[in-house]
Amino acid sequence: MEISSRRPATEAGPAEWFTGAVWIDTVADAAPPGTVQVRSVHFAPGARTAWHTHPRGQILHVTEGAGRVSRRGGPVREIRAGDTVRAEPGEWHWHGAGPDTFLTHLAIQEADERGVRTEWGAHVTDSEYTD
Amino acid sequence: MEISSRRPATEAGPAEWFTGAVWIDTVADAAPPGTVQVRSVHFAPGARTAWHTHPRGQILHVTEGAGRVSRRGGPVREIRAGDTVRAEPGEWHWHGAGPDTFLTHLAIQEADERGVRTEWGAHVTDSEYTD
Repeated sequence: MEISSRRPATEAGPAEWFTGAVWIDTVADAAPPGTVQVRSVHFAPGARTAWHTHPRGQILHVTEGAGRVSRRGGPVREIRAGDTVRAEPGEWHWHGAGPDTFLTHLAIQEADERGVRTEWGAHVTDSEYTD
Repeated sequence: MEISSRRPATEAGPAEWFTGAVWIDTVADAAPPGTVQVRSVHFAPGARTAWHTHPRGQILHVTEGAGRVSRRGGPVREIRAGDTVRAEPGEWHWHGAGPDTFLTHLAIQEADERGVRTEWGAHVTDSEYTD
């Protein structure tokens, strides 16, 4: 059993996968044979992920603020503290802050048999974001 | 993609598996082939789980308050909001509130190939709890 009060250093969200200012804290990584990763992701207003998909799906749980999510072909929807979002395996989607509001969510994802948790696509354009 | 703002009804922690007053909220269940479950578990002062183990391990993330954890053969240790606890696969352990403090944590666990996430043992005695 491992208790960690001090977390690893916050990482900046790589520009390859995010638009705007994003900070990522490692909450936990499962011990094998578990595969789940838990991250706390902080998005400054206007910041968002690129389009992406998870072979085993993803659970988001909003811990603070308000933001937006969308899936390929769907409308942009608002999310707020307390909301839980479940992305289906293989479903292309994005998530991030609101244009004027900070957002923090937990992101929880398992790995597939290849060890892959996320596959990344194109950045979310301003027009997709404000749609 | 499913966004849920309203959660399923809170369940009382079964007396078979818990001591004291415990309430459990379903935060999310992964869509297959994902297996991860996320629960928010609220422990009144003095309340705790029974001894148990998880075949794929478990991640706890304390969202509020202060409490206690221990593993078989180990000391009782304090946990506080912001702490993350990782229980190893197969490691017998328990967790709960402090004697005088409420605790809420997220509990995150994957299922093994049998679909099992948790195996339960004996209740934690007062002497184990206050050790």
